[in-house]
Amino acid sequence: MTPGVSFKVHATDGAARTGELTLPRGTIRTPAFMPVGTAGTVKAMYPDQVRALGADVILGNTYHLMLRPGAERVAALGGLHTFANWPWPILTDSGGFQVMSLASLRRIDEDGVTFRSHIDGSEHRLTPERSLEIQALLDSDIRMQLDECVALPAHRAAIEKAVYLSLRWAERSRTAFGGTEGRALFGIVQGGDIPELRLASAEGLVAIGFDGYAIGGLAVGEPQETMFAMIAATTPSLPADHPRYLMGVGTPEDILGAVLRGIDMFDCVLPTRAGRHGVAYTRYGKINLKNARHASDPRPLDPYSDCPASRDYSRAYLHHLVKSEEMLGAMLLTWSNLAYYQRLMSGIRAAIGAGRAEDFAAETVEGFAEGDIPVLA
Amino acid sequence: MTPGVSFKVHATDGAARTGELTLPRGTIRTPAFMPVGTAGTVKAMYPDQVRALGADVILGNTYHLMLRPGAERVAALGGLHTFANWPWPILTDSGGFQVMSLASLRRIDEDGVTFRSHIDGSEHRLTPERSLEIQALLDSDIRMQLDECVALPAHRAAIEKAVYLSLRWAERSRTAFGGTEGRALFGIVQGGDIPELRLASAEGLVAIGFDGYAIGGLAVGEPQETMFAMIAATTPSLPADHPRYLMGVGTPEDILGAVLRGIDMFDCVLPTRAGRHGVAYTRYGKINLKNARHASDPRPLDPYSDCPASRDYSRAYLHHLVKSEEMLGAMLLTWSNLAYYQRLMSGIRAAIGAGRAEDFAAETVEGFAEGDIPVLA
Repeated sequence: MTPGVSFKVHATDGAARTGELTLPRGTIRTPAFMPVGTAGTVKAMYPDQVRALGADVILGNTYHLMLRPGAERVAALGGLHTFANWPWPILTDSGGFQVMSLASLRRIDEDGVTFRSHIDGSEHRLTPERSLEIQALLDSDIRMQLDECVALPAHRAAIEKAVYLSLRWAERSRTAFGGTEGRALFGIVQGGDIPELRLASAEGLVAIGFDGYAIGGLAVGEPQETMFAMIAATTPSLPADHPRYLMGVGTPEDILGAVLRGIDMFDCVLPTRAGRHGVAYTRYGKINLKNARHASDPRPLDPYSDCPASRDYSRAYLHHLVKSEEMLGAMLLTWSNLAYYQRLMSGIRAAIGAGRAEDFAAETVEGFAEGDIPVLA
Repeated sequence: MTPGVSFKVHATDGAARTGELTLPRGTIRTPAFMPVGTAGTVKAMYPDQVRALGADVILGNTYHLMLRPGAERVAALGGLHTFANWPWPILTDSGGFQVMSLASLRRIDEDGVTFRSHIDGSEHRLTPERSLEIQALLDSDIRMQLDECVALPAHRAAIEKAVYLSLRWAERSRTAFGGTEGRALFGIVQGGDIPELRLASAEGLVAIGFDGYAIGGLAVGEPQETMFAMIAATTPSLPADHPRYLMGVGTPEDILGAVLRGIDMFDCVLPTRAGRHGVAYTRYGKINLKNARHASDPRPLDPYSDCPASRDYSRAYLHHLVKSEEMLGAMLLTWSNLAYYQRLMSGIRAAIGAGRAEDFAAETVEGFAEGDIPVLA
């Protein structure tokens, strides 16, 4: 591990484990869910609210921040932590994934990727070195290598090509990162839905040596069982004393299943994006507040929650806010969803400590299956 | 005054005065600024945040709430206070003003006004009686008579017609209200920019007798001096022991000028709407955060403010949020603006108590005239 960075596993229960990833700006309790703060803000939340929910780390997106306000500007303003009023750990991605999903006219070559901004059409270039330079300007605590992520389904040849390009970029990223004290660098396992390519990717990365290992290229449209199979195929070749991060995942069910298979860290836009679209994640499962069944319902989303957003506002009011496109609707549902996700993580951490991770996961999923409380007579 | 409602003047300084309007749900310290909670939410704010800023009362709009979620539904859900999680006083308007500004196909007759909803085109009717019935269903603490508000400039004949129609509606509103214990009914002075019509309107209302008297039909495009002249022409005929409310006003300068002329209550969408459009109201005056001068400025809006939104976030970050259309931009600027408005009101109240209301107003306006802090070198 890079000096100033440490990871300790506390308890294990099957493949699941709890641990702590410690960095100068704070300790991340794992398994951890990292709220996504795309452009330097977890959408519709004040930063201290996010912290109060138990988030030890948030994500920043290199692609968004390099385009606006610009990495050099953020650096001049004291780095992303000062800029965004979030003094605790921040993980930044490499920018590669969003170049592929958002930018136009992207051209990938051996050295890197050229693309046009989705904001103003200006041309930009990302290489493994420039990505790490941007992440250093942002001064994020956990930095990711640039990789190539292939959408599934894909031909084996395309997946294989991406695996080896990503490994060469991993090597260059490692060199570019250097070993900045107190900052961590994660490599990213690719390999699509082909177990032996996942294995080759993981072994290649471990040979280079990273502080942590991410699994990328999942939750890109494949069935959940494929995702779980790829995790199971990968984690055994990743060193147990380093954190494992499943990128872009996922639903509560996805997260629980992945924790049971040895994953320590997650990020996903689901709770925040759903919150802006009238959807709540609760102990009763997913609830669509746009549905007319809530229009006259005086009950809160979840009377047992300790989050004011879930407990103190009626479904009727939330329905009204969502239908009226009032900002408070997005604010309350995002808050409630992130509270639920953080509660889920503290729940699974406690369950692992108590040796009942499988039971906790099963009980939680059963709760979803039972569905929402019945409509009032 | 209606039983359960009382108004006490504490200090006077020229025409300016401080007082307390007491209702069962709480006491309103005057001069008061009432944040506008159009559809049952002060946009981009949590209700307890609004309260913590020192707001003793918020506004709800009858027009919006009758159309969505519907007054009968709000009543079934326990009234607007329960619905919107705001247990303190609420003032509702009559709906008339927004029928005129938002609805389509409106037809006014002696009995009331028929219009189509701007949401779904459905036909609705408001009469003085139905407006009071809706306000009773919402169970607001302060209710307003239905009136006809004429946009300026206008012909004398049109203004005069509206004054006398509004007086007949005032009479019917008084009867419809009955004298509900613990709830207040305000009449509304009309008369455009014609002093003798303002006087006739005020005298007509006082003869009927209301808990408070509003001045309507100002801040509708006329110069500030006209507005001040109309206030000066009206307040002497309003009873000193009843609260006076200037509807829909205004800028900090408007409010200070009106307080000096004897006004006790204000509402305006300015601080909340401006906050959603990247504009801050501060001790330095109006600041447009969209302006590129803020893009690299690490300083907060106002380092002397006790509002976290004004004090703890850099102008560069606010600029970034506004340019990126991030919800947090609207959240922070609305918060900062309402904090400034409430601070302005507590400042003028203290100044009236100290016999230096004119000085306070002059110093505040001088602060605006000095303008924003200089750009960093």
